[in-house]
Amino acid sequence: MLVLYHHPMSAAARLVRLVLAEYDDTAEFIEELTWQRREEFMALNPAGTLPVLIDADNPPMVGGNAICEFLDETRGVLKRERRLLPENPYQRAEARRIVSWALDKLENEVTRYIVLERVFKRQMPSALGGGAPDSKAIRAARANIKFHMGYLGWLAATRNWLGGENISYADLAVGASLSVLDYLGEVPWEENQALKDWYARIKSRPSFRPLLGDKVRGLPPASHYVDLDF
Amino acid sequence: MLVLYHHPMSAAARLVRLVLAEYDDTAEFIEELTWQRREEFMALNPAGTLPVLIDADNPPMVGGNAICEFLDETRGVLKRERRLLPENPYQRAEARRIVSWALDKLENEVTRYIVLERVFKRQMPSALGGGAPDSKAIRAARANIKFHMGYLGWLAATRNWLGGENISYADLAVGASLSVLDYLGEVPWEENQALKDWYARIKSRPSFRPLLGDKVRGLPPASHYVDLDF
Repeated sequence: MLVLYHHPMSAAARLVRLVLAEYDDTAEFIEELTWQRREEFMALNPAGTLPVLIDADNPPMVGGNAICEFLDETRGVLKRERRLLPENPYQRAEARRIVSWALDKLENEVTRYIVLERVFKRQMPSALGGGAPDSKAIRAARANIKFHMGYLGWLAATRNWLGGENISYADLAVGASLSVLDYLGEVPWEENQALKDWYARIKSRPSFRPLLGDKVRGLPPASHYVDLDF
Repeated sequence: MLVLYHHPMSAAARLVRLVLAEYDDTAEFIEELTWQRREEFMALNPAGTLPVLIDADNPPMVGGNAICEFLDETRGVLKRERRLLPENPYQRAEARRIVSWALDKLENEVTRYIVLERVFKRQMPSALGGGAPDSKAIRAARANIKFHMGYLGWLAATRNWLGGENISYADLAVGASLSVLDYLGEVPWEENQALKDWYARIKSRPSFRPLLGDKVRGLPPASHYVDLDF
């Protein structure tokens, strides 16, 4: 059985969980607090990041991108019209562009700061950087998200799914990222109706249900987080 | 013909140039200063990042990762033993892990800061953030690179190539990143002989030659930058 090291506040780990569920697969899920830099975990991934996927005695697979490509090559390729990367190489590049938008750009401009300041700093001992949140960092991230709402909303308004005609990794990656922020009540849905409508569609998929049951210690989700009609 | 928007100080763009050359392919190369946020360029890639690859009338392909996957699917797959991603999915995941180490981790902990402070700030108008380099940022990046030298050197010392038995995207990505830093004289080669030996091998490949001819306006390369015996 697969083993996935993850955390409910890791967008890339949420993406892997969605892909596994979409492919009717699962894993043993181990929650990892990366800021603890546990020796056994660092031996699996010297970068100290999530997600990490273990498949028996093979070398650990590291990172949302490498893991999703692996799942495409070993699962997706058998799924025909349910495959989550298009067959056409130009359309695949477009799906991957949007995955990178979510896991790299949105992550580095918004999600990383919100999660660090609002979640991890509450849990980390002060010697590791824990303590009061930096309100300036939170304000900057909240300003940045508006640009992302606009761009992703434009994709949602002009396409059936974010990457094109069919649902793809693009939708799951953006959905995973926004769901982390939505848990924390940090998505200004009123800014973009098209994006909200798209999110309602992706949120209602069975693969999303386990994510809606996620809980972070000492920090309950925003009141609308689990509602399909939010 | 392909068109590649790039910059000599973009590690991801250097990776794409290496892959094209390894596959005996080429492109029209257009140098882009992303901080100018040129309207025509932003229309191709609203993220404003490099590299961007244009293939005729298809949608622009964005990002080192998406472009290299595209080149694997459309070129590499035909190259048999010269293919730069292994056939085995676990080995592919390992190569992609190391690509991400170079293009994400090394980039975000070292290269991005060195290039911004030492190259772009000299060229940018002050209204866009140009001006004197921040010596604190440079010092932090120079401290960070030592960890990377150690880890990448460990890979070089224990494997034939960084990703395993054969040369792969892993070597080209790390080579591309280190070559940006080496242009600026920022790689402390004396720290790790195994990494230096590995770099001498990758640097002597014909695909690397065009990179060694790169020039940044007003900033000549470190004296050993072009030497194969450095």
